[in-house]
Parts: sequence; structure tokens; C-alpha cells
Amino acid sequence: MTEENTGKPSSSKKEGTKLRDSTGMDCILVGNKNVMSYVLACVTLFNKGANEVVIKARGRLISRAVDVAEITRHRFMTDLVVKSIEIDTTTVQTDKGSDLNVSTIDITISK
Amino acid sequence: MTEENTGKPSSSKKEGTKLRDSTGMDCILVGNKNVMSYVLACVTLFNKGANEVVIKARGRLISRAVDVAEITRHRFMTDLVVKSIEIDTTTVQTDKGSDLNVSTIDITISK
Repeated sequence: MTEENTGKPSSSKKEGTKLRDSTGMDCILVGNKNVMSYVLACVTLFNKGANEVVIKARGRLISRAVDVAEITRHRFMTDLVVKSIEIDTTTVQTDKGSDLNVSTIDITISK
Repeated sequence: MTEENTGKPSSSKKEGTKLRDSTGMDCILVGNKNVMSYVLACVTLFNKGANEVVIKARGRLISRAVDVAEITRHRFMTDLVVKSIEIDTTTVQTDKGSDLNVSTIDITISK
């Protein structure tokens, strides 16, 4: 939710890591790596027994998150469905200390 | 659905125009203009009596479409809700004549 949205806000949130969110769901945070890195992470989670994976991104990386979901379900695991997609706005601190609104997306794909 | 997704495929689809899609719904195609141009287009459509507006984008512009939806419903018209979000993949022709898969998003916001 900003005209100059950024994929690289200065907050210390670690991107590109597989983790479990507050609801215990497997979750992938999309960062600046290649799209295929996240596709691989996603496929790995499903192969390890996950039934649902949440792909999260913010700012400019939102389009990459959509790519990850689409490549995973069309090219690698065709039995997957997009269960839900949520968009929201979050506030991050810039280097100069001011607040910046950034859009976020959570794409839940499931078997 | 591509590693090198692009907001500027060479097909002749006109971006940034207000139009009605095949279902007769008011629809905004997000292109390379400023985010606020599309927010304004969206607010105008609702003020003209639309009950639902579909914000469409593809490739890198997907994150801008999310920004448009978020700015419109948080800053200008707080009574709006995100009715549905759909992601898909479409094929466009590159300048060299080869096919390129590009992710798309359709965000439906309604009163």
C-alpha cells in the first residue's frame, strides 16, 4: 500500500526461509532468490508430508510469490489447488526511521 | 509463471484502461502508470455506481494491482471488501516469436 513499494524494507525479517507461522502451518517467505529456489522449497515441504503450504511475500516480491504458486502447481505438482489468497497492508520502518506501508500477500496452496 | 516474468510483454493488450470484461463487470487493467492513476480510476467507477470492480494485472505489475486494491480500500473507500482473488497463468508471444508464461491476478473488490 505505497506508491514506492519495496521488496527490501530495512526491517530484519528473514526472507526465503521455510518456517512455521503462528498457526503451525508450513510457510515460505519469498525473498530475492531465484523463483525456482522457492518452488523447490515448496515441493520439498509437500513431499515431507505437508498438506498445506503458505507462500508469503510483500512489496515488489508479491509477483514472485504468484509465480512460485503457479509454477509449483502447473509444472511440478498438478494435484495442488489454491485454497485461499489474502492481501493486506503492513507497516515497516525505513532506514530514515519513518513508516512505510507495504502490501503483503499470503497464498495458501493445498493438496 | 516464469522465472523472468515481465510487465511488458509484446502483445498488443492495452493496459491501464477501464473496460468491461466478458461478464459485463467493470474492470481496470493495471499497466505502467503511477499507482494513484489506477486508484483514481477505481474510485471513479464506484462513484459512478459500480458495485464490483475487478483489478487485473500480469507479470511484475501484479504487486502494483495489490497496491491499488489496498490503497483504495484503506485510504479512500473504507467500506469496500476484497470479494475474491484469482491467480492464473497466461501465454504471451515475445518479440522473438517464442511463447512465455506469465502469471496473472484478478482482484475483485466490492461494496
